[in-house]
Amino acid sequence: GGKMAAWARAVRGLLLDVSGVLYDSGGDGGVPIAGSVEAVRRIKASGLKLRFCTNETQATREKFVKKLQGMGFDISVAEVTAPAPAACRILKERSLRPHLLVHNALVPEFAEIDKANPNCVVIGDAAENFTYANLNEAFRVLIEMEKPVLISLGRGRYYKETDGLKLDVGAYMKALEYACDVQAEVVGKPAKMFFESALAEMGVPPHQAIMIGDDIVNDVGGAQRCGMRALQVRTGKYRPCDENHPHVKPDAYVNNLAEAVDIILQQL
Amino acid sequence: GGKMAAWARAVRGLLLDVSGVLYDSGGDGGVPIAGSVEAVRRIKASGLKLRFCTNETQATREKFVKKLQGMGFDISVAEVTAPAPAACRILKERSLRPHLLVHNALVPEFAEIDKANPNCVVIGDAAENFTYANLNEAFRVLIEMEKPVLISLGRGRYYKETDGLKLDVGAYMKALEYACDVQAEVVGKPAKMFFESALAEMGVPPHQAIMIGDDIVNDVGGAQRCGMRALQVRTGKYRPCDENHPHVKPDAYVNNLAEAVDIILQQL
Repeated sequence: GGKMAAWARAVRGLLLDVSGVLYDSGGDGGVPIAGSVEAVRRIKASGLKLRFCTNETQATREKFVKKLQGMGFDISVAEVTAPAPAACRILKERSLRPHLLVHNALVPEFAEIDKANPNCVVIGDAAENFTYANLNEAFRVLIEMEKPVLISLGRGRYYKETDGLKLDVGAYMKALEYACDVQAEVVGKPAKMFFESALAEMGVPPHQAIMIGDDIVNDVGGAQRCGMRALQVRTGKYRPCDENHPHVKPDAYVNNLAEAVDIILQQL
Repeated sequence: GGKMAAWARAVRGLLLDVSGVLYDSGGDGGVPIAGSVEAVRRIKASGLKLRFCTNETQATREKFVKKLQGMGFDISVAEVTAPAPAACRILKERSLRPHLLVHNALVPEFAEIDKANPNCVVIGDAAENFTYANLNEAFRVLIEMEKPVLISLGRGRYYKETDGLKLDVGAYMKALEYACDVQAEVVGKPAKMFFESALAEMGVPPHQAIMIGDDIVNDVGGAQRCGMRALQVRTGKYRPCDENHPHVKPDAYVNNLAEAVDIILQQL
């Protein structure tokens, strides 16, 4: 905490990862991480700006937020930065009409988007929708374009569910990238634009913001590349070997969100 | 043909790609390419050594050869170099027990191989077997190994069937490579070892062998990297833009296998 004091005093806003920081996901919907419900309340009471910054793409923000509220979290849809709405902004700006390869539960996020005669593919963690037929279909849409446009809602390699490890969207993104000889545009962490839009929504510049996450690459590395400080919690997908990561070093480690909030509020 | 004369005179053996050179594949089993049945007979009558060198992994060699014989080709199982038998040799040499992610019709090629308690994954063009569940299972087998071993029966990006383009094994290989942070060992064209074993089976050194194929990268480029000459036929998956390939230039173009055989036999 001693070294942290120097820069934590300037903090005006916090960005929190959700899964692995606020709660642990699971088949039953998940359970809050001890102390996190209270930690979110204390951040809000402190007057610090707060933004939830998640790569969740298996549910609409509405459903996701409702689940978290059910666990006791003080959170609203307007406070959440997530890949699907960010992708929708890009689609509108560039007049792109997507072919969607996403989870059924995410489709409503694209309700306002014209999807006729697609000129790009949007891939998310489609889970059971990652069938041979659906992958071939997305591939054919891409390969028929003069210049294929592939937008990926994240680049995660895999994640853990109660019934075991699952391939994440990044693996399927790589399959399409290779087949079409194209580079996907990644929306969501660790994309710089994603963090920047979360900062803009808070109205806080990067040097006055701290990201708190469990993912050494997507949370910590991504935020640091935007000029933010970043803490890694030792909850969620954290593994001790993260502390020897060859490229990324968090500005500090904390045992969990509650401890992070303790230390940060002490500096103010 | 003039420039070809200089080196074609030394030829003692031919390697023929099958799909796109001998026949065009399709839902009904496919049709022979005009002149190819007779061209194979002429090669055999000439005394040149001959080897069929295919990346086919959707059928055993037995079934594949039977199909070609049914079209009139003079071909036997012993004359075919294919990825699955090459993979079996590697598995035996290195005491590897594979988890198979392959087409159902290919499984008999691995009948003699111990598959209990797998310590590697073998991936082929599994087609309908590329399900979300099967991909997750292969991934879990790999990620649980201390040093994941992934053997891929080819690295093709996609191919055409009567009902449209399909993702080939290379795309799924890339997905697993990315998820496990591992590099697959590719068996089949364009792997050097694959061409070398075809040459060894013929008993012909590379500078006395010519590869004839329709695939600019996997046939022509692969064979040339082994020290062979290579012709590209303008049949099968050949596209005019292949003639502007940034890295690979065939030693000659021919309209089809029949023309290649005409020119080669004239030099002898």
